[in-house]
Amino acid sequence: MSNLKTYLSVCQNRVERALDARLPNENILPQKLHQAMRYSVLDGGKRTRPLLTYATGIALGLTEDVLDAPACAVEFIHVYSLIHDDLPAMDNDDLRRGKPTCHKAYDEATAILAGDALQALAFEILANDPSIQADAAARLKMITTLTKASGSQGMVGGQAIDLASVGTKLNLPELENMHIHKTGALIRASVNLAALSKPDLNPAIAKNLDHYAKCIGLSFQVKDDILDVESDTATLGKTQGKDVDNDKPTYPALLGMAGAKQKAQELHEQAVESLSSFGSEANLLRELSLYIIERTH
Amino acid sequence: MSNLKTYLSVCQNRVERALDARLPNENILPQKLHQAMRYSVLDGGKRTRPLLTYATGIALGLTEDVLDAPACAVEFIHVYSLIHDDLPAMDNDDLRRGKPTCHKAYDEATAILAGDALQALAFEILANDPSIQADAAARLKMITTLTKASGSQGMVGGQAIDLASVGTKLNLPELENMHIHKTGALIRASVNLAALSKPDLNPAIAKNLDHYAKCIGLSFQVKDDILDVESDTATLGKTQGKDVDNDKPTYPALLGMAGAKQKAQELHEQAVESLSSFGSEANLLRELSLYIIERTH
Repeated sequence: MSNLKTYLSVCQNRVERALDARLPNENILPQKLHQAMRYSVLDGGKRTRPLLTYATGIALGLTEDVLDAPACAVEFIHVYSLIHDDLPAMDNDDLRRGKPTCHKAYDEATAILAGDALQALAFEILANDPSIQADAAARLKMITTLTKASGSQGMVGGQAIDLASVGTKLNLPELENMHIHKTGALIRASVNLAALSKPDLNPAIAKNLDHYAKCIGLSFQVKDDILDVESDTATLGKTQGKDVDNDKPTYPALLGMAGAKQKAQELHEQAVESLSSFGSEANLLRELSLYIIERTH
Repeated sequence: MSNLKTYLSVCQNRVERALDARLPNENILPQKLHQAMRYSVLDGGKRTRPLLTYATGIALGLTEDVLDAPACAVEFIHVYSLIHDDLPAMDNDDLRRGKPTCHKAYDEATAILAGDALQALAFEILANDPSIQADAAARLKMITTLTKASGSQGMVGGQAIDLASVGTKLNLPELENMHIHKTGALIRASVNLAALSKPDLNPAIAKNLDHYAKCIGLSFQVKDDILDVESDTATLGKTQGKDVDNDKPTYPALLGMAGAKQKAQELHEQAVESLSSFGSEANLLRELSLYIIERTH
């Protein structure tokens, strides 16, 4: 794993710089809003989605500089969803990545607006960031991919299903449907935006990459559920056992802990299988899939 | 004004149908989210922004069918901003257009998500709605125009400035700066999206239309402030005197009622002046400018 660890560290630094460069300066009016946007984005998250964008691009022979903007766009959508998800009317979380959540550090109104502005910024970047080399038609496909992944039949829809499911007994297909929307859609978009950055990509390869992304999107969530039970609050950076406290459906609750771990392993194997047409250029994608199910936070 | 009244009625019907056709069906999962989106959008609003898009397109010789999608995109952004603006953490309004606000009719979490999903839908439409005839490059310019108009240095920024100004004494330039962002940016976008729908439009004409939009964007706000003082709650469809109660800065407070009315009139005259290169094809734009300062709600 040393190859991946080195890459993750280098890449996380790259993501931080790319995000920083695309966020409004906090000295520009309205300052408090811009400070809140920067506070929530630049907090040293895992950057799983941007890393997937870069790793997919590398598998396709692209250079990292053409991937900065799509990677940032996906991360801005992810962060806006966390800000809104943490609000008192939603999950009511005080901690995120070990720091006060946006509405605790600022106030609720500012948190709502910071999320709203980050969503607009994500699409603005795809529409006009000069580092993107794809042509106008491909940019439009990127925007469509990200709007669908984040809208009412993607991520936001998944959050709505999640909220509606608290206190109910979801079965496995229903739980999976929720996660495919809530976290899976954006993880797929992270991979698919990189695929759209490659001109004239073979559709069969694009399909295999999309299948890889579907598998790791689910394994990511299975692992999150496992971590929520097994980790302590300090390691996780958020309140531990939150999902269980809220009587939310989880994989360990439905499959048992051993069953959930087996499920994560099977999804990882399926993900790697879908990369069979690639050589060593896809090793980062393979190692990322393993990292997702072996991570401790 | 009979010309305009007939047009408004026909056009409002057209907007309702165009919005309805682009909203997710409420039988599609997640149903409650889709119901909330439809509840807030399809409520018989004035549709000022779509009407401006159509009227600008007509002045440029475009047919209405190529303007449906841009008109809907702007309206979806406007409605999402109203939903979030009405939340308890923001303006805490119970009534909007004479009906319970989204978070009163549903719940806060659903209202937050409905707003988020409407924002994504707005950009999705500009990226892939087949009724748009403009080429891919022009679509990207539309998306950039709407993201900038609605982001942290546009509408959302204006809301942040507005929140920060409650209880403070803004002077006239500060008040104007707030409104240029909060409402003006989206009104300009309504006009500019139509201009971007016209291939190879003369830049001087585009600039004149943008100036027209700037003027009516401000006159719209001056008139809103006047109405907030003069109208009763039943006519206005929202709680009357709200701005005064909240100690928000307003034009009548800064200029007196006569001064505010004169300001609205001057802005209308400037708006009409900026259309001097147009003939009768811009009459709707001229009449809309007059309508904005003469409306009673």
